Formats: sequence, C-alpha cells, structure tokens
Amino acid sequence: MSDQATAITPEALLKHWQGHRRLTRRLIEAFPEDQLFTFSVGNMRPFGALVMEMQSMAAPMVRGVVNGDWNTSWDREARPKAEILRMWDETTEELDALWPQIPAERFQEQMVAFGQYPGPAYELLLYVIDNEIHHRGQGYVYLRALGVEPPPFYER
Amino acid sequence: MSDQATAITPEALLKHWQGHRRLTRRLIEAFPEDQLFTFSVGNMRPFGALVMEMQSMAAPMVRGVVNGDWNTSWDREARPKAEILRMWDETTEELDALWPQIPAERFQEQMVAFGQYPGPAYELLLYVIDNEIHHRGQGYVYLRALGVEPPPFYER
Repeated sequence: MSDQATAITPEALLKHWQGHRRLTRRLIEAFPEDQLFTFSVGNMRPFGALVMEMQSMAAPMVRGVVNGDWNTSWDREARPKAEILRMWDETTEELDALWPQIPAERFQEQMVAFGQYPGPAYELLLYVIDNEIHHRGQGYVYLRALGVEPPPFYER
Repeated sequence: MSDQATAITPEALLKHWQGHRRLTRRLIEAFPEDQLFTFSVGNMRPFGALVMEMQSMAAPMVRGVVNGDWNTSWDREARPKAEILRMWDETTEELDALWPQIPAERFQEQMVAFGQYPGPAYELLLYVIDNEIHHRGQGYVYLRALGVEPPPFYER
C-alpha cells in the first residue's frame, strides 16, 4: 500500500487517540460539577472551557480531513457535566465512523484546516491530540488544587 | 518498504517530537530559577522534577528501542537551570543520532521497556512524548500561577 516506512499506522493512531479520550473522559467525570466552569489557577480558562475546546476541534478536524468541509461553527458554551459527557461519547462514535474513511495517502497531504491552519493531515490530527493532552494536564493540576485525586495518566 | 498504510513515518515522528522538545526547552528557560525545584500547585511535583523525569525517559527509551539495552540508572536530582538546559541539548543531539538507527520494522515490534513496560515500540515512544506534553501542560499552570507568561503552545 505504501513505499514509506511506517512508525504509526492509521488504525494505531486512532486507537491511541481513543485511549487518551477515555482518560480525558475520566477526568471530566472526576471534576466537581460546580467547579467545571468556574475554578481556575493563574487566571487560566476553567477545565470545562478547555474540554469544550477539545470537543470543538476533534470531530470537525477529522470531518475536514475526510471530506474537505471546514465550515464548522464553534460551540464552546458552558453546559452541565452530563451533557458534556453525552457529547463526548457521540464524538467518540463519530471518530470511529469517520476515521476508516480517511484514504491512506491522505495523511501525508497538505491542507489548510478551517481555512487557517496549514500542514499535512497527520500533523493537524496530532495537533488536536496533543492539545487534548496539554489541556488535560492542566486539568490534573486543577483537580489536585481542588483536593481531588485524578485518574492515573498511564491508564487508557 | 512496507505493505502497511502509514499515518506517520519514523522521520515525521522524530521531527514532531523535536518540535515539542523545543517548546519544552522554552518553558524551562522561562521558569524562574529559584522556583524550578520548589514551586508547585496542589502538592504536585515541582516543574524541575517533571523535567528531570522527561530527561530520564527520552534518550534511554530510544536507546532501548535501538539496541535492547534497558539498564538505565535514573538520575532525577535537582540541578541549576543552565545544567538542565545543557543536558536537554545533549539529549536533543543524541535523539537525532539514535533515531535513524531504528530499523523501520522495529516500530511495530513488541518489547518490554526497562524490564517492566510492555508494548509495541511506537506506543512506548509515544508514551514518552505524551508524558512530556502532559507534564509541560502542568508547567504552563505553574508559570501562570507565578505570573509568568508562557510561550505559545502552537510554536514549535
């Protein structure tokens, strides 16, 4: 299928991401509902806002890679934790459905995500995954500052 | 070279990691020297300790993947910022030298890192990269809590 050496296959990258998403879901569950959109450290955004950012990037990025549709309207409004978890699970299913529709050669193709972020598709996808890890790491600090034990990082 | 589909090539994965490492280096530089091994939020480890953990994992993991030598003695002692930056730069060069020695098929091989962490090589390498992103995200919170503006996440 390819004359390139492979560090990570498409299937492995999705599996890796979904493992991270399960961990992020556990963090959302562990977060006290009344602090989700209010608590913060150092004037940063509250964890709920960071999660809504992840939510606004995940499926829209993969949808764009699949079909070139970058006309996404961002929805980052605060909402109850149960609603966020429901959206999270919908996105998990949508990613599983969309991912196999990415043609193998597409991962190396240059594109401009959302009309403003240029790069090969694999880098754009990694950006979304890395951004989730980055902000979830911040969620760990918020939880610790709130006296809540976060789920272990290595469990996926 | 392979009948597998490729999301990420070996070269791209190293380039991606070195981009993250440049950002982490900027965070170390931005951190106030007198807070590096003392300041923390929520009783977590100080940023210097997290950086020493990254340092203790990066080259030893790649060395193990290359030659099966997992006999690494961890060195996570506190030290001056200039010394940490010097070690960081040495590791950057060592990664560049080691990485091309990983045979392409090795990335999919099962191994047991450091005698205790089983997985295919690409997952073990991703773990080290993700761990860096995770703990660096925590460093962002520490910096903000100290009133220091961190470098932008998207700059690599």
